[in-house]
Amino acid sequence: MVRRLPEIHSPADLKKLSPRELTQLAEEIREELRNVVETRSAHFASNLGVVELTLALHTVFDFSYDRLIWDVGHQCYPHKMVTGRYDRFSSIRTLGGLMGYPNPAESPYDLFMTGHAGCSISSALGLKCGDDLIREIEKAKAGRPERHVVAVIGDGSFANGVVFEGLNHLGASKKNVTVILNDNQMAICPRVGSMGQYLDTLRMSPRYTEIKADIKRVFESIPILGHPMRQFLHYTKNAVKAQVLGGMLFEELGIRYIGPVDGHNIRQLQKFLRMVRNYDCPVLLHVFTKKGHGYQPAEDDPAKFHAPPPLRRSRAELRRQEKLQAKLSRMAGEDLEKEKEKAAAEVRSDHSFTVVASHKIQQLMERDARVVVITAAMCQGNKLEQIRSRFPDRFFDVGICESHAVTLAGGMAKSGLKPIVDIYSTFMQRAYDHLFQEVSLQNLPVTLLMDRAGLVGADGPTHHGMYDLAYLRPLPNMVMSVPGDAAETEQMLELAVTCGLPFAIRYPKTQTAEITGLPRQAVALGKSEVLLPGIPGGGLVLACGTQVADALDAIRGLRAEKEIGLVNVRFVKPLDTATLFPLVRRCGWLLTIEEGAKIGGFGSAVLEALTDADISLPKFRRLGVGDRFIPHATRQEQLEMAGLDTASIMRVIEEMQKSMEQSGYASHHTGI
Amino acid sequence: MVRRLPEIHSPADLKKLSPRELTQLAEEIREELRNVVETRSAHFASNLGVVELTLALHTVFDFSYDRLIWDVGHQCYPHKMVTGRYDRFSSIRTLGGLMGYPNPAESPYDLFMTGHAGCSISSALGLKCGDDLIREIEKAKAGRPERHVVAVIGDGSFANGVVFEGLNHLGASKKNVTVILNDNQMAICPRVGSMGQYLDTLRMSPRYTEIKADIKRVFESIPILGHPMRQFLHYTKNAVKAQVLGGMLFEELGIRYIGPVDGHNIRQLQKFLRMVRNYDCPVLLHVFTKKGHGYQPAEDDPAKFHAPPPLRRSRAELRRQEKLQAKLSRMAGEDLEKEKEKAAAEVRSDHSFTVVASHKIQQLMERDARVVVITAAMCQGNKLEQIRSRFPDRFFDVGICESHAVTLAGGMAKSGLKPIVDIYSTFMQRAYDHLFQEVSLQNLPVTLLMDRAGLVGADGPTHHGMYDLAYLRPLPNMVMSVPGDAAETEQMLELAVTCGLPFAIRYPKTQTAEITGLPRQAVALGKSEVLLPGIPGGGLVLACGTQVADALDAIRGLRAEKEIGLVNVRFVKPLDTATLFPLVRRCGWLLTIEEGAKIGGFGSAVLEALTDADISLPKFRRLGVGDRFIPHATRQEQLEMAGLDTASIMRVIEEMQKSMEQSGYASHHTGI
Repeated sequence: MVRRLPEIHSPADLKKLSPRELTQLAEEIREELRNVVETRSAHFASNLGVVELTLALHTVFDFSYDRLIWDVGHQCYPHKMVTGRYDRFSSIRTLGGLMGYPNPAESPYDLFMTGHAGCSISSALGLKCGDDLIREIEKAKAGRPERHVVAVIGDGSFANGVVFEGLNHLGASKKNVTVILNDNQMAICPRVGSMGQYLDTLRMSPRYTEIKADIKRVFESIPILGHPMRQFLHYTKNAVKAQVLGGMLFEELGIRYIGPVDGHNIRQLQKFLRMVRNYDCPVLLHVFTKKGHGYQPAEDDPAKFHAPPPLRRSRAELRRQEKLQAKLSRMAGEDLEKEKEKAAAEVRSDHSFTVVASHKIQQLMERDARVVVITAAMCQGNKLEQIRSRFPDRFFDVGICESHAVTLAGGMAKSGLKPIVDIYSTFMQRAYDHLFQEVSLQNLPVTLLMDRAGLVGADGPTHHGMYDLAYLRPLPNMVMSVPGDAAETEQMLELAVTCGLPFAIRYPKTQTAEITGLPRQAVALGKSEVLLPGIPGGGLVLACGTQVADALDAIRGLRAEKEIGLVNVRFVKPLDTATLFPLVRRCGWLLTIEEGAKIGGFGSAVLEALTDADISLPKFRRLGVGDRFIPHATRQEQLEMAGLDTASIMRVIEEMQKSMEQSGYASHHTGI
Repeated sequence: MVRRLPEIHSPADLKKLSPRELTQLAEEIREELRNVVETRSAHFASNLGVVELTLALHTVFDFSYDRLIWDVGHQCYPHKMVTGRYDRFSSIRTLGGLMGYPNPAESPYDLFMTGHAGCSISSALGLKCGDDLIREIEKAKAGRPERHVVAVIGDGSFANGVVFEGLNHLGASKKNVTVILNDNQMAICPRVGSMGQYLDTLRMSPRYTEIKADIKRVFESIPILGHPMRQFLHYTKNAVKAQVLGGMLFEELGIRYIGPVDGHNIRQLQKFLRMVRNYDCPVLLHVFTKKGHGYQPAEDDPAKFHAPPPLRRSRAELRRQEKLQAKLSRMAGEDLEKEKEKAAAEVRSDHSFTVVASHKIQQLMERDARVVVITAAMCQGNKLEQIRSRFPDRFFDVGICESHAVTLAGGMAKSGLKPIVDIYSTFMQRAYDHLFQEVSLQNLPVTLLMDRAGLVGADGPTHHGMYDLAYLRPLPNMVMSVPGDAAETEQMLELAVTCGLPFAIRYPKTQTAEITGLPRQAVALGKSEVLLPGIPGGGLVLACGTQVADALDAIRGLRAEKEIGLVNVRFVKPLDTATLFPLVRRCGWLLTIEEGAKIGGFGSAVLEALTDADISLPKFRRLGVGDRFIPHATRQEQLEMAGLDTASIMRVIEEMQKSMEQSGYASHHTGI
């Protein structure tokens, strides 16, 4: 069969296809999706789920003029394939290739670079208000038609507060915006919250949306006669109508509810999209899709296939495990035990910060019944599944509701619990005001796990945890820690739930580093760890996170362990000035390293502290991420771009050494 | 008649009172409220509205054990009066006196220090989850009863997204939390959004909640027989029941809806509160109150009486105006014109930043039809009423929905409009993630007016705009400006809507300062203004905002205009290094001044820039607000506490001068 996908250079090409050809195209798109996830981690199940919806949307609307916004945007792969980016599709999520999220720099069909949930309705309403006003302003310019605005939002995002804020305004505005609720009964993890339960009841309401139009006509033709029964009947009529037609909750908010519609039936989708295109009011079109549709393993376990590791690697893994099983079955006795131990050790070999933290949380929960965990739909990403099944009463997945998560934690802490809020650094931005009011201002013992802090790899700019050090630092009472290895992560967590303070622990999306060959100190509140003391007049490196190990490697690479000091700072707030100041006072140059925005971050904290203490500064450089967005790539590539990899650190240290030699050792300390 | 209020030392004392005595007490509480607003600005109308509700709550529950949270908290005055704080009530909102918001340091009856809207339901659910778990953990300790948890939330706050997030979790949790929706059909300004319209329809539903119980019984006794009509009838029954009983929207979310109830009838309130206390599920009790109840002028214009200026001053103002009128009516011709001009000038004499900005916005809107304004329920606070009535199609009050406001603005900017988002600095925290994703990341021309930046006076810690400089600085693309006087405010606004960049303008809650006796330069993007050039080896002050005028006063007070340099920085980002660096290089000491948190703020920006440019630092001090919460007081008192008033600045400059003299001029520049 002739492949059609390579011939689709723009959505206009879709309009030439017959329904049968569109169905074939859908299969080709699924094949491409499978090809991509063969080779790398990418959003999969959600993209499989929206293939037909994407084709229906692009055949009914003209999004070179109309407006289309994908909420979050991780489900935009089919959209990218049919908007002139098929030839580059295999590059997705790699450096220089297509982004895994909408990106206006790639195509005019992508309006906003997104990645955080719930904003599509507000953005859509903003566009609609703007387009309408601009049309009015430019009316002299001739009869431009109305621009249709469509937002596609998943039921997982739908629980987020800004969605409700958007609907509340949209309903009152009476603007012609179409919200397509892509209901697959899932966030990344199973959906939570009563809105989800409500959506499920709609699934139960009379199946065939087609006949609803008739029912509606009948209801509207019932005459209402005479008082005093009139008002009662009026209510009854509206009530029955709304209930039978479904979506009362949305209708009450001024938004016409249409659906549910089968999201894998292109013709039915087209029919309903044509219908809503002609409406002149806010519409919610409820579409049922199946996450992972068309790929059985993904349909069966959509959470696992949300953004799976490369399938090819998975298969290799599978073969390895099969071999191991075969080997085990041939063995017995001591050999078998040994082999089993070896296998278990391999399983334990995931030493990502996320996994280390998760294990430690579980241990803390076993020990203290007051410890509870809150996640915002990231049960899987935060590796909390085992905790969820083991402590169902002390595990709270609140859905994509970070504001609520932090506020809830404040209430729990007030009641005497020890809540741990486990949220990605970038998504914690959604709860900034609550970190201020509900945690910092109340000085409540809430532990904040800022996972994915720093550079996150293929997800790119929307997902980097760049700003947490800068945005948390000014909040009073906040303890801010940065573990570099597994032991520190565990000890900081232990400290966090026992010290009775608001306590943030930030760590990146990677394996814990290893700091080897040096005696280590246990973590203590607000204390740094001096790894290399350095010498008077020599260089001094202050690092935190995995950059401690990198800095150590760099110093060792330069064979400078004797002359250059290295401090594992551990706490960005409070800063351990008692340890740092004497070292800085005697050093020849100073370098701070952090995986985050340089503006307002850890290096600035050091600068502020030194200046406030009237300590005259040596030659000082701050390594960190400059005032820009780092594009999608691997984390290692991003570290290189930001100058935070070991080689870059080594280069900077060499430069510092050289400039010190040129200007004479410890020139800034001539006054001492 | 004997006054009862002085005898109320705790809510226990209320329980001894007869209904008639409670009614009398309500009147006494209103009298106290009026007494307070005679002498100072305070929240008034909302407190008048909840007098009966407060008394009913404290007589039905025991909040020394049960939990009561007032959303926002500005309506807690009657609550304070009956929880042992009557004797100190006259001190409210003054330095050392009671806070105008709940404050756990004042009383165990205040659980959280609040001030930002919408968090009460999440906090309440957190407490409930915690109390239940703690009871389970401590069950050995004997039969403690369940702790009831009540959140009181106004319909204005109700539109905020975190409310929906809280309801969504509450409904699914099935926890016994009572949400009292205090519906006065107002935010501070008239309510907006379709949720508000929905609440109004509930008001229209059958009046007498008492009879609803009967209706419910009838419906539940209707038998449902036989298939296939069964399912249809099932829907019909539920639909009619829900519609007649009202509150379907909440019932759909798993929350039992009760009401509406007259919020000024203590006995009815008590009856319903007793009823909901016995429920074992989430309940929303819909209470209708009248903002300003019991004081006619406040009932008639609750927006004006939200937090009116001291009534006594208003009366004096009134008398003055009457006199003027009488005088005018006796005059004619030229005299009359002169007098009219004088009166008009007086009206124009409000040169607060807010008013100056509002006038300028209006001018910009007249000139350019693409300029639109968005406010989040602060139409009154931001002085936008005139704009609202003049440009209804280009004015968007979205309610207390800051996240939506910023996202909406992003959409508008994308469509070609020039949106101005006018939100208090402290409330902009609610939109932090949207400032990142929808503005900074997209590099869209959204103008952010951060009103009430810095110290805000009597509202205290929850309302200070402390962190905006620190939290905005790390976001790429963001222009951040700080006007000090009226002309700068106007010029920056003009620049903001024309330069095509994300542009923040932050200004405090006060009159614009005046920088006199010096030639001035027009505002240009990213350019600072050198007011006093200083001399080589002399001091240099870098200030922004009203602190520029204060610093000038301080320097003049010291008669040091010749030796000390002063720069009006204007732009915190981008920093005008071309102007600043040469001045810093030659100066003897450096002082930065800002009205905001020192951590990560303007002073840090200067430190970072100098260090990055390898400029060796002179003696350097940063003035700003330290790492703590500044309590409620007047703004002037707060400036003194923070060391930011003119006298403090003068003192610091003297110290800097003295220390420079001691160490020899320009010691740090010996190398040059």
